[in-house]
Amino acid sequence: MPNNLFNAYSKQRVTRTPVLVVEDNADQWTIIQGAIKECFPEVEAIWVSDADQALAYLEETKTQAGQLPKLIFLDLYLPQREDGWKLLKQLKDPAMGFSLLPVVVLSHSSQPEDVEEAYDFWLTSYIVKPLDYDQWISALTALRNYWWNVVTLPGPQK
Amino acid sequence: MPNNLFNAYSKQRVTRTPVLVVEDNADQWTIIQGAIKECFPEVEAIWVSDADQALAYLEETKTQAGQLPKLIFLDLYLPQREDGWKLLKQLKDPAMGFSLLPVVVLSHSSQPEDVEEAYDFWLTSYIVKPLDYDQWISALTALRNYWWNVVTLPGPQK
Repeated sequence: MPNNLFNAYSKQRVTRTPVLVVEDNADQWTIIQGAIKECFPEVEAIWVSDADQALAYLEETKTQAGQLPKLIFLDLYLPQREDGWKLLKQLKDPAMGFSLLPVVVLSHSSQPEDVEEAYDFWLTSYIVKPLDYDQWISALTALRNYWWNVVTLPGPQK
Repeated sequence: MPNNLFNAYSKQRVTRTPVLVVEDNADQWTIIQGAIKECFPEVEAIWVSDADQALAYLEETKTQAGQLPKLIFLDLYLPQREDGWKLLKQLKDPAMGFSLLPVVVLSHSSQPEDVEEAYDFWLTSYIVKPLDYDQWISALTALRNYWWNVVTLPGPQK
C-alpha cells in the first residue's frame, strides 16, 4: 500500500511543497496525514514505509530542482530502532547528498538513550508522538510556526 | 566585558536552565538578552563572545550534571564566518562530547550558501536575525513553543 502510494507520487510531478513521512504503520500514517493536511494546507505529504523507499524517493527527487522535501518526518522504529538509526545515519552522511535536509524524528519512545542517540546522529529535533489527534494538531502548529515562519530552511522552497 | 561575565558565571553554580549565547557584538547581546529574559523567564542566558570562550564554558560545565546548556545560540560571523563554521564543526564533532546539544544559528546573513553550509554542518536550525525587538520576541516565542513544549531535548533538563 505505501509502495503503491510512493509509485503514484513518483510518476507525477509534485507541485506543492513536499514533506516526506517515513512511517511503517498505516494507522499512524493516516493520523499524521490528517494532521499535516490541517496544519500545512500547502504541503504534499509523501508517505514511504521503510528506509529503502525513503532513499529511492530522495534519489529520484534530488535531480528535480525544488522537489526535495522541505522536511523529513522519520519514525524511529521501522519497526526496529536499528532501522531508523541506519536511515538517519545515511541521511546525515554528507556523501549521500541529503545531509542538509532537516530530519524531525517522531517516535513513541521517550527513553533517554533513544533521545540522546538521535541527537548524537545530528537529527534536527526529536518529538515523542502525541497521544491524540488534538495533541498532533497543537504539536504541528507549533512546529509550523517555528520552521515555516522563524527558521530559514535550505533550498529553493523558502 | 564578555570575558568578565563568563568568569562571573563560571564561579557560581547556575541554578536556572542555562542557554549559551555565542555573540561577538555587545549591542546584539543586549537585545538578545532582553528578548530571552522576556520569553524564557526561567532561563539563565550565558554570554560568551568567541569560540575559545564557548568551548571553555562547555568543557567546564560538562562535568556538572544538568549544567550543560539546553540550547546554544551561535552567531555565525564571529566576526568572520570561518570562525563560526570552525566552532560549529567542533560542537558537532562527536569526539568533543557536545554533539547532542542543539545549535541554533542566529545570523544577519540570508545568503543561500551560508544557510546551506550551516545545515551541512548539522546545525539544528538557521534563523536570520530579526530586525527589531518585537520581531525578536515573536521569533523567540515561536522557538520556545516548539523547543520547550513539543520537542524532547537530550539531557536531564527536560
